[in-house]
Amino acid sequence: MSANPFEQNLDKNAANYQPLTPLTFLSRAALVYPRHTAIIHGKQRTSYADFYARSRQLASALATRYIGKGDTVSVMLANTPPMLEAHYGVPMIGAVLHSINTRLDASVIAFQLDHAEAKVLIVDREFAAVAREALTLATVKPLVIDYNDLEFPQDGEPLSYTDYEEFIAKGDPSFQWKMPDDEWDAIALNYTSGTTGNPKGVVYHHRGAALMCYANTLATGMQAHPVYLWTLPMFHCNGWCFPWSLSAVAGTHVCLRWVRAKGMYDAIADHRVTHLSGAPIVMSTLLNANPDEKREITHRVAFNHAAAPPPQAVLDRMVEAGFDLTHLYGLTETYGPATINEWNSEWDNLSPEAIAQKRVRQGVRYVALEGLTVLDPLTMQQVPADGESLGEVMFRGNIVMKGYLKNTEATEEAFAGGWFHSGDLGVLHPDGYIQLKDRSKDIIISGGENISSIEVEDVIYKHPSVAYCAVVAKPDEKWGETPCAFVELKPETSTTAEDIIAWCRERLAHYKCPRYVVFSEIPKTPTGKIQKFKLRDIAKAD
Amino acid sequence: MSANPFEQNLDKNAANYQPLTPLTFLSRAALVYPRHTAIIHGKQRTSYADFYARSRQLASALATRYIGKGDTVSVMLANTPPMLEAHYGVPMIGAVLHSINTRLDASVIAFQLDHAEAKVLIVDREFAAVAREALTLATVKPLVIDYNDLEFPQDGEPLSYTDYEEFIAKGDPSFQWKMPDDEWDAIALNYTSGTTGNPKGVVYHHRGAALMCYANTLATGMQAHPVYLWTLPMFHCNGWCFPWSLSAVAGTHVCLRWVRAKGMYDAIADHRVTHLSGAPIVMSTLLNANPDEKREITHRVAFNHAAAPPPQAVLDRMVEAGFDLTHLYGLTETYGPATINEWNSEWDNLSPEAIAQKRVRQGVRYVALEGLTVLDPLTMQQVPADGESLGEVMFRGNIVMKGYLKNTEATEEAFAGGWFHSGDLGVLHPDGYIQLKDRSKDIIISGGENISSIEVEDVIYKHPSVAYCAVVAKPDEKWGETPCAFVELKPETSTTAEDIIAWCRERLAHYKCPRYVVFSEIPKTPTGKIQKFKLRDIAKAD
Ligand SMILES: Nc1ncnc2c1ncn2[C@@H]1O[C@H](COP(=O)(O)OP(=O)(O)OP(=O)(O)O)[C@@H](O)[C@H]1O
Ligand SMILES: Nc1ncnc2c1ncn2[C@@H]1O[C@H](COP(=O)(O)OP(=O)(O)OP(=O)(O)O)[C@@H](O)[C@H]1O
Ligand SMILES: [Mg+2]
Ligand SMILES: [Mg+2]
Repeated sequence: MSANPFEQNLDKNAANYQPLTPLTFLSRAALVYPRHTAIIHGKQRTSYADFYARSRQLASALATRYIGKGDTVSVMLANTPPMLEAHYGVPMIGAVLHSINTRLDASVIAFQLDHAEAKVLIVDREFAAVAREALTLATVKPLVIDYNDLEFPQDGEPLSYTDYEEFIAKGDPSFQWKMPDDEWDAIALNYTSGTTGNPKGVVYHHRGAALMCYANTLATGMQAHPVYLWTLPMFHCNGWCFPWSLSAVAGTHVCLRWVRAKGMYDAIADHRVTHLSGAPIVMSTLLNANPDEKREITHRVAFNHAAAPPPQAVLDRMVEAGFDLTHLYGLTETYGPATINEWNSEWDNLSPEAIAQKRVRQGVRYVALEGLTVLDPLTMQQVPADGESLGEVMFRGNIVMKGYLKNTEATEEAFAGGWFHSGDLGVLHPDGYIQLKDRSKDIIISGGENISSIEVEDVIYKHPSVAYCAVVAKPDEKWGETPCAFVELKPETSTTAEDIIAWCRERLAHYKCPRYVVFSEIPKTPTGKIQKFKLRDIAKAD
Repeated sequence: MSANPFEQNLDKNAANYQPLTPLTFLSRAALVYPRHTAIIHGKQRTSYADFYARSRQLASALATRYIGKGDTVSVMLANTPPMLEAHYGVPMIGAVLHSINTRLDASVIAFQLDHAEAKVLIVDREFAAVAREALTLATVKPLVIDYNDLEFPQDGEPLSYTDYEEFIAKGDPSFQWKMPDDEWDAIALNYTSGTTGNPKGVVYHHRGAALMCYANTLATGMQAHPVYLWTLPMFHCNGWCFPWSLSAVAGTHVCLRWVRAKGMYDAIADHRVTHLSGAPIVMSTLLNANPDEKREITHRVAFNHAAAPPPQAVLDRMVEAGFDLTHLYGLTETYGPATINEWNSEWDNLSPEAIAQKRVRQGVRYVALEGLTVLDPLTMQQVPADGESLGEVMFRGNIVMKGYLKNTEATEEAFAGGWFHSGDLGVLHPDGYIQLKDRSKDIIISGGENISSIEVEDVIYKHPSVAYCAVVAKPDEKWGETPCAFVELKPETSTTAEDIIAWCRERLAHYKCPRYVVFSEIPKTPTGKIQKFKLRDIAKAD
């Protein structure tokens, strides 16, 4: 028996211990702001009372189909109301939400459905064709439900006799949902993008999702009643957990079926959007919009961007256009963003170049992340904080996944030594901010020297004829590896391998310059990420 | 073995599970904003880097004195920097912070020191005399440390040869503190006010303190870098956890040794205070300040008030004076505030009377509280949500204490049926907001009818001669109980028992009117709360 008086008869009970879960945020918002608009979708408006009631109807309807704890409910949905309802209705019965990237091809979807052991599949009719093909390929036979979006009618042939609205209409709007048995219980399943190989099934728990709600509101400066525009796909890391986060602040979701300029400008101006997030592609879509698609924005809008930061000029134009930018970084494995480039007002007076250098850094740990560092993955020692020494970015804390579903080996590898290995290579600056340099698998080691493929690509991208490029390692007898560049040219331009190499030699240390240049189309994932592992195979075979 | 694939090989490890604790918020703030001012005290400024370093020095110095896990470090400090440092340095070594109400008398302090098994006592010289007396009465012999405030020199005779600054100077500013072994580990010990009897030792854990940080920032609308004025004593429920909360948003603490009008106005104007909290007495001090103590406030200041709300006129004058008010309610047992009167903009256009009625309600659960309700304590059934039916306010969730230290009986009673019994009686309005009516122990049951002592007191307070009053139950053969009023008159006024009774009969149902009126001084706790249990004894004996 412990002699510590603070451990005697002071145990957990229902009164002083409850599992953390984002579900309690929705029930609270519905109680406190029942008439506040939770969801805007086309002309449709859903109040918090109705959002909560419909989520409970979904939970109840699923429960009557014997769906329950540990069952996977897969969805192929655009950023529409049923996707938000699924974020609550599915975990309300202890089931796990599996959001499928709607741009995947049928074979990958079939793989996911089987691997996830899907019991239910809710599909927007926009994606009916590919879903049908996937269901043909898959072994599992989930209950299929069609979502007919009355605001934006889609003409895909329904897959089933079960219509989403009819399905939930049978559910009980005051269904008594249960708190998770344990905050460690799974809430969602998300497959990685497959940039580095086969996608892995990342499992999130209720605890992490709840903590992300707090951390997201702090990171993005969300107070009571933000208005959030859904430019980020909700199938991507559960929309960085914002479907849950908004309930903590009774915000309004502005749905967006397609990320197109006119829809975004209209939403921002008409609904006074306060926040949106996305990859740099969202910025270019906004900036390159036709004048007749644009609307005047008279208020400041917070834009949270992740994925490699775009050129400085793009960032500057975004600020001019009315957006306050915050640079975030994370992985599917970290529930979305887990670092933030916290801006220090001391930097405001630096030169534009120095400001640009601060902006591209991935930053510091999210407030809900307990540890972030750059380690030598072999010794697990921290690299010197000199902004130069390369190591692997590692995470530790409550917003790191439970692990990979049915993949013990990958899970153990990812958590080796008590840190989550991100697979991203980076440096630690003297002020403790991290900066990414490359993915571990993409770094090129030539004559014992590390070459960041990103650094070489940055130079090649500046060449006037280059539309896309990717630099990978090619095995080399003398140097071990040597850089090999794949280049896609802009329409109606031409150049030569020698020209590209000469271009690089003028701008880079010679050992970093590609010794091979291949002109060809570059393979990408359905989300547009370049698949270097395929290029490496080509480079090796050559 | 479970068949649930989401529970196979997806266990907790150091990479994906860390104890929740507010300590990680300070280390983060020190990394991200090392030069930002964490503490303002007189002319002294402490940066976040130094705040963190000094907290680690305190932890290190305590550790070299063999203080560690489960040991109690007691402090008798005003709202000064060492009090903030203790909130971090003490838990950094697994010790428990026991903050003593500096207005208590020696015997109660001695009781607390013994009950808490204090190993260390840090005392501000302002409180040296009472602390000396307490140490004489107490059985424990803690290591005593004197804090000499150089900004506001105090002339109490030092109690020891150990000076706080010298003590921590020996500590290591880069001391490697440890995360708690478990987030359920105790972080603080706070004794209740003793309004209803003997004070009980309420134990807080790291998990609850961390969650309060998130909830506090959401409740009070704190974004990056708030400026918080310390009008609330930090010894009261650890200043509602704001000593920890500010680290999550890298805010500035403005210390305040004495809650006096001039100091408050100067701080608000000079440091552009954004937030402060306190009981209605802080409002009266601000409003009743002499003109030469007042300063013009050109910005809005958020004022979070708890303890029974003051009259509507006071609230109106505060709003005029530049304060945005938020009404909170909680107990020592709930880490400070656990409900919030969330203001609904729909109410802005109501009549002043209707607005006043909305304002006095205690509201809805804090975002980090999982359950709040009003139950019949016998049947544990919820009372009808009619704004009329009286029941006991009950809490459930992660910001409810571990329990009472070394008081299993009181702990079990408090948590009976899986809800924390607040001892406050209230009603549930149709919209789910709660409103307090009385404490359970103070309600008077006359002829089977409940009489709220507060309702009767409100009427007596309006009598022009009454300075203080308290109404308690007096045993009665016929009615069971009958109201008995204790009245303290204003200087140079006089009245009679008959006059008070007649005054009440004009304004209240007759069964609610006192049948006995006693003119005498009214016993109060050192914090100014009326001790009705003493009055009940007198009423019974009479
Ligand atoms: N702000 C950023 N700057 C640079 N790179 C980023 C940023 N944010 C995200 N990334 C990149 O995106 C990766 C996370 O992407 P995601 O989890 O969607 O799938 P993926 O890693 O591309 O796929 P897979 O793990 O299957 O290879 C990070 O590891 C990082 O390489
Ligand atoms: N907003 C509020 N409105 C009305 N009463 C409040 C409010 N906030 C706090 N209180 C009262 O204060 C009590 C909490 O006070 P605290 O925990 O400091 O000690 P105490 O309850 O007075 O002491 P003890 O428990 O020893 O009798 C609540 O139970 C409630 O009665
Ligand atoms: Mg990845
Ligand atoms: Mg109490």
